[in-house]
This record gives sequence, structure tokens and C-alpha cells, in this order.
Amino acid sequence: MNPNVRDAEYAVLGELPARAEMIEKTIQAGQNKFKFDNVVYCNIGNPHIFNQKPITFFRQVSSLCENPDLLKIENRQLVSKLYPSDAIARAEILLKNIGFLGAYSDSKGVPHIRQNIAKFIENRDGYPADPDTIFLTQGASEGIHRVLQLLHQPNHHQKTGVMIPIPQYPIYTACLQLMGAEPVPYYLNEQKNFAVDLSRLEKSLRMAREQNVNVRALAVINPGNPTGQCLPKENIREVIQFCHENGLIAMADEVYQANVFHPQDHPFHSFKKVLRSMGPKYDNQELFSFHSTSKGMVGECGRRGGYVECVNIDPAVLQELYKIFCMFSCANVQGQIMVDLMTNPPTEGDASYPQFKAEIDAIHTSYHRRAKRLTDCFNRLEGVVCEEAKGAMYLFPRITLPSKAIREAKRAGMSPDSFYAMALLEATGVCVVPGSGFGQEPGTLHIRCSFLPEESLFDTFCKNIERFHKEFMTKYKD
Amino acid sequence: MNPNVRDAEYAVLGELPARAEMIEKTIQAGQNKFKFDNVVYCNIGNPHIFNQKPITFFRQVSSLCENPDLLKIENRQLVSKLYPSDAIARAEILLKNIGFLGAYSDSKGVPHIRQNIAKFIENRDGYPADPDTIFLTQGASEGIHRVLQLLHQPNHHQKTGVMIPIPQYPIYTACLQLMGAEPVPYYLNEQKNFAVDLSRLEKSLRMAREQNVNVRALAVINPGNPTGQCLPKENIREVIQFCHENGLIAMADEVYQANVFHPQDHPFHSFKKVLRSMGPKYDNQELFSFHSTSKGMVGECGRRGGYVECVNIDPAVLQELYKIFCMFSCANVQGQIMVDLMTNPPTEGDASYPQFKAEIDAIHTSYHRRAKRLTDCFNRLEGVVCEEAKGAMYLFPRITLPSKAIREAKRAGMSPDSFYAMALLEATGVCVVPGSGFGQEPGTLHIRCSFLPEESLFDTFCKNIERFHKEFMTKYKD
Repeated sequence: MNPNVRDAEYAVLGELPARAEMIEKTIQAGQNKFKFDNVVYCNIGNPHIFNQKPITFFRQVSSLCENPDLLKIENRQLVSKLYPSDAIARAEILLKNIGFLGAYSDSKGVPHIRQNIAKFIENRDGYPADPDTIFLTQGASEGIHRVLQLLHQPNHHQKTGVMIPIPQYPIYTACLQLMGAEPVPYYLNEQKNFAVDLSRLEKSLRMAREQNVNVRALAVINPGNPTGQCLPKENIREVIQFCHENGLIAMADEVYQANVFHPQDHPFHSFKKVLRSMGPKYDNQELFSFHSTSKGMVGECGRRGGYVECVNIDPAVLQELYKIFCMFSCANVQGQIMVDLMTNPPTEGDASYPQFKAEIDAIHTSYHRRAKRLTDCFNRLEGVVCEEAKGAMYLFPRITLPSKAIREAKRAGMSPDSFYAMALLEATGVCVVPGSGFGQEPGTLHIRCSFLPEESLFDTFCKNIERFHKEFMTKYKD
Repeated sequence: MNPNVRDAEYAVLGELPARAEMIEKTIQAGQNKFKFDNVVYCNIGNPHIFNQKPITFFRQVSSLCENPDLLKIENRQLVSKLYPSDAIARAEILLKNIGFLGAYSDSKGVPHIRQNIAKFIENRDGYPADPDTIFLTQGASEGIHRVLQLLHQPNHHQKTGVMIPIPQYPIYTACLQLMGAEPVPYYLNEQKNFAVDLSRLEKSLRMAREQNVNVRALAVINPGNPTGQCLPKENIREVIQFCHENGLIAMADEVYQANVFHPQDHPFHSFKKVLRSMGPKYDNQELFSFHSTSKGMVGECGRRGGYVECVNIDPAVLQELYKIFCMFSCANVQGQIMVDLMTNPPTEGDASYPQFKAEIDAIHTSYHRRAKRLTDCFNRLEGVVCEEAKGAMYLFPRITLPSKAIREAKRAGMSPDSFYAMALLEATGVCVVPGSGFGQEPGTLHIRCSFLPEESLFDTFCKNIERFHKEFMTKYKD
């Protein structure tokens, strides 16, 4: 067996969620010996499990695409009672351009959809985007994996390294370990709201190169996961300069670009836009940018839709990436359709626009309210400091635990934050991810908790956390 | 860049299909300087591009799942005019069990669907199947890739090797090269209808081990791709014995299990069934079996649905495989639904059964007719010998070319079979894959040609091939 698989950790779906599932099964089997009635999965950004409704227009279009009989003339009268005209029109456009929904598409994805994505990127950034440099993927994870496969050099005398932020969403470490490549960690600066710190980048790169690691790329997650920051433009510019000076490919994980809660003070800046704004000197700076249908207000995680835009990549290299995509045929076409809808939604004047706008706004403002309420909840707890999320779907409070709890954790063979998270799960059913699952600065402890639970249950949710924390602190008081 | 990517070949989507697409674009742009009106993509098993209609019941259910509003009471009357009762009932069962279509499922797949797959396997084989050992995948390719990742040992002092049939569908070589692992080829016996030849297995394994390759597994494709054979039970038994004696994991690629045309004389035997029939001595023989929604009579390639059944795998190893699946969250849920439908279709007494049965039978008998007609066509050609396909979707005729053509190919820097295939494409628009893309015994030449073109166009299709071949042979007569 691959020893790197054995050593790899994947905390988002690790020991805690496994325990959570066991608890859930026990409860479902009618043997509830717990103080709560259900498990609250805050370990993963999976909005629909909290009864978040899918965007109506998106599902209308996808259901019409699935069943070509619905678009037949003889059914038109009935169907028009069930579907708005613009959903029918969109399904017809998609089917015409896709050709056959049940066939493999081009391995890069349906050309028509790539054109729509390019327009979306152009509108977002104000700079041109080329459909031929856009590859549809099964979620952002696949795109990240493929790019890492492209730049990895197995059997090379030097190990391939990729710089990854700490804390980080663990797909990067996991993929690199799986391949036998080297994660080269750099710490985000918690004091500066988890900005990227240039001196830390330099130190980390120097150390890796001294250890004979062939560092090829630098990954940034913006808006941050698990850390919720939206990087300032100047910070992104510094990162790009650093990549440029050191011959590193930039990988920008931008899946939370629509989950931004303070757009005035902390807007989302795409790496592509900042790169293009830096002038022709940077026209040779390679960049891969990832997006997904799983986040934003869409939240269609089960669909496995996403794309990667390849910026300033040599056409010969792009051709090699294409070869990797060809091996796996294509991204699922239903996921591709969802990417089309996400990047090309109804606009003013369309029959479905008012409902679409209302749905998106309701989710967005509710996310913002929930983020604030959970931040307040955490900040009321003894020894806990929590920054309000500027973006993404999580809070990442820093927790100071009594030394008795830390000793107890050691005795149980667990990291202190895992120990705390496990106690929280057993007492409340709330499943979070310990900071150690993402990496954290030595001597600090955190948990990552999504703020996605249903708003109507939020009072209970927060009260449970508060009650638990008080009891925990009392129990382990020094 | 990963030098293994550069060196990897992926002929199914290589130089010829790229040229085919260029030709198609030229024609679409109204500049047809060719002797044909459209490109015929016989390079890939992609039935829907030839106007093969999706199975009605499957698409009805998936379209109902997509749009939860259709199942609301107030729409029931209208919807029952568009959908049969059993499609509505099935969608309700699926949605109830999936919970939220837009959410990540369990990384292994929806438990309810895994249970249905287990029942399907039990009915097929007459031996128990455990839902916990079944993982839903995005097409069979993903399953193969994940299992290879599991057993690969990067940075080990020995290279990991996997025995692969030659000729083979190139996903195996491609994945192994991508990872920096070693394909260990063994030649199928063309004289014995491409059976697996024990002495060749032994020789191939011995040579690889002498070269210090750590051979871990043996892959078999049955029914064969590109070779169309259905392995006899005794041959499968020999392969399993060989694996058992030599400590090799068996990987059975069984995606064409429903595409069998002589079930009396050449039935499909699953590796799992044969393994179980060999008694308790083999209860420690590890086996991974792959299946897909892309083939059979379903042909839903764009869906990316599939599964892998893990037989006799140590629970600790299964847990590690689960970890790899967790990294990529889950297979797309729409694909999972298609796997449910494929393995659990309407049965006698269901409202949709007659139509379902008629559709499946029509596709199956038409495949059989087309396979025969294309076989006859190839066998009428000078220097061509073609075995009728027992299974799968392709013919793999052996071609003897005049030495003048072989010299001409060399001059053009192409293998003779690629040279022939390219000439065929330029003259007829028929795109096939040269045998060298799958590997073939030295000194032999083949092409792989799917028999999927629309039956109504088959006369023209065959005539074009015959006309081309005559002209080619005349042109290059020795």
C-alpha cells in the first residue's frame, strides 16, 4: 500500500466526522443516550444538508436538459405550466450546444460553456479571457489535482515541492503526499488577519531549497479557508511578485469568491485581475485559478462542477495538461451545466430574474447574519478570540485551553484541539474540525466551524456551544 | 513539467481525433474540400453521438430528481401526464434516501445506492456482496486511478509495477506513467481469440522482477477492449491462480459486461464469481472489479458514473482507499443515480418495464447486427482478418499492409497503422485508433473501430471503408 496514503491526514473527513456518523447512526437506531437529537455537521462546507434550497432556475434548467421529451412540441403546453419561459429557452440553448447530454464532451469541457465562463471572467476582471485556456473540472479538487500532477516530477533526483499556506484546506497536502511530492508550508500571519507575509514566504522557500526540494509552485486560498480573510490587492501583488522573482507558478484557489461579506472594506480581488494590472512585465507569470459550483450561494456540492483558468501557460504545456484531462474523458456534463448557470445566471429583464435575485440575496444576507452571530457567540467564550469572517463559510476561532485540559488530551493521545472538538461533539452533536487538521502556528489552538446551520436553529446551536464551553472550562480549570 | 506526462500517449484521444476535429471544423465553416460530409467518430465508445437515444425511464427519473418542485402535491396532476407512476415513485425513493441531491454524499457514495449495487452483484453472481466494499466513482477511470494510487509506492527504492494486457485500453499505462510507476505488459494470445496466456504472464512477471520492479497487481479487461473477447471461465480461473501464487492483486475491468453478443458460447463471467467458486483457499485473493454507466446499453458517458467493488481487501486497506476518496469528496450524485438505475432497472410488472425492455433489446440486437456487418466488411478487404466481437463495442481487425505503404509511413515519421488510419480519416471521415495506441505484438498491425455508427448509415459507412481500402492497396501495391 502507498505509505503516503497511510501517512496522509484528511481532517475534514477524519476521526471526528467518523465519530459523528456513529453517533448519528446510534440516534437513528432509536438508542439516543446523548443530550441532543441530531448531529450538526459544521466540519464541511455543505450548505444543502442544512436545508438550504437549490437555486430554482438552475434546477429547472438542469431537469429540462435531463429529459428531452419535455421539450417536444406535443408537451410544450403542459411544460410551460411547470417551467418559466427563460428556463425552457436556456435548456434549449444548452442542449443545442452540448449536442448530446449522454456523450463525452470535449475533454476540456463543452466549448459553448467555456465561452460563457470566459465572458464571466472578463466581466469580473475587466481583462480578456480565452475559452481555450479554461478546463471544466469535477469540483475544484480535480483541477488542483490535475495541475499538481502536471507539475510533479516523479523519479526526479529532487523532490517536487509546492508552497502551501498554513492553515490550509488539506486537499493540497493530501494530493502532494499521495504523489510523493513535498508540501512546503508557509504560515499566514494571524496578527494581520491571515495575510500572506513576504518574509515568511522567503524563509520557507529558502529552507525548502536548502533541503534540495525543487519548489515549483505556490498555492493561495482566497477568500481563505479555513481562515476567512479576503486578501488586499497589495498583498496579492506581493505574492505575484514573489512568484515572479522566484520562478514559481501561482495557484489561486478562489472557490469562495462569491462568499464575501464586507465588499466595501474587504472585496474579493482575483489573482488574474491583479496579475493583469501589473503590466506586461508579468505576462510570463504562470497562474492557475480554480472555481467551483460547490460554494457561493449555489452550494451544489454533489454536482462536482468547477473549472480552472490557465493564465500565461505555454501552449505546449497546456497541451500536456489537456492530455491528462483526456485520460479521464471529461468532467460530468451535469456539473458543466451547473458551471454554465453559475457563471451566466438570469439577468434583469429575464422572467426568472426576480426570483433568482431574491434567492441569492436571501442566502447571502443570511450567511452574513449567521457569520456575525456565531462570531459573537465564540467571542463570548472564555479564552476564545474569533475574527469575523470577511469571506468563505467558516470561522476559525483561536482557543486557549487550561493546562489541565492539555494534559488530559496528551493522556488520551490527542492534540488538545482535537480533544476539545471531540468533547464538543459528544456534548452537543456539533462536529467541527480541529485547527491541527489545517495546520496552525505552534503553540496556538483553533477550531474551524462552518456557520451554515439553519438560521431558525441558530439560537439553540449557539447556546449549546456556550453551555458546553462553560462546562469544559469548569471541568478542566487549572 | 511532469516528464511522464510528456511521454505518456493517449491514442484514444490523440493525434487522429485532433485531426478529425480540425476536419470537422473546416466542414462546419463551409469549406468542405473533403469527399465526405461529416466525421464519423469510431475512435471512442461514445454511443450517444450516433443518435442513440438515452433510456427513457432513466432520464425521467433523473429529471424528476433534479427538480424537487415537480414532486410537490400541487403539481402532481400535471406531472403525472408527463411521467409514468414508477418513475415518480423511483425519484421519491431516491430523493428520500439521498437526502439532499445538492449535498456531498458519503465519500463512498449514497448508502442506499451501494445497497442496490450489492443486490445487483449478488443476483449476477450468486454470491454475497457487501455494500461497505463498494465505492461509487466518476466513471470506471476514476476507480482505476484511485486503486493504482492506493497500491503505488512513490519514493520506494523499487518502482511499483502493474501487469497490463497488450493490447489494452490505455488508461492503465497512462495512469501508471503519470505516477512514475511501471506498466508491465503481457501479450494476449491473438491466436486463441485474445485469451490470457499463462506462460506469457509468467515470463512477463519474471522479467519485471529481474529488473527490480515491485509488481503489485495484474489488470484484465473482460470483455476485452480493444479486442472484444469474453474470457472463458477456465482462463479467468488460471489468471486468479496466477495472482494467488504470485501475491498479485487482481484488477478486473468489467465495464462491458452487458455488451455480450454470444451469451450461449461466450458468456460473461465476472472475476468475483469465478473467484468465489474457487473455494475458501482463495478468500485472501484481493480483487477490485470496475463497472461504469458509460457502456452497456445505457451509454451515458457524459454522466461519469461507475463503481468499484473491493473483494477480499483488508479492512485497514479499505480504510486507506476511503481516505483517498474523501480527498475528492464524492462521485457526482447524478452519476450515482445513473448507477442506481443501471443496476436496478424496471422489472416485469412495472409500468415502465415494457418500454424499458423494448429499448434495451433494440439497442442490444442492433449492436449485434452492426458488429456482424462491420466484421463482414473488414473480412472482405484484402489483407484484413477480423474476428467477430464476442463483447464490448469495437472490432480489432488485423491488417497486412504492402511494404511500399510501410516505407511511406516511415518516411512520414508514423507507425504503419497510424499512417493507414490517417489515410482512412482523410479519405472517408472515419476516425479509428491505430493498434499501436493499445499496443500490439511486434510485426502485427491493427486498427480499433467501434461499430456504433447509426444503423441507417451503415451501408455508406461500410462502402466508404471498402472503397478507401481498395484505393489504398492499389496506390501502395508492391
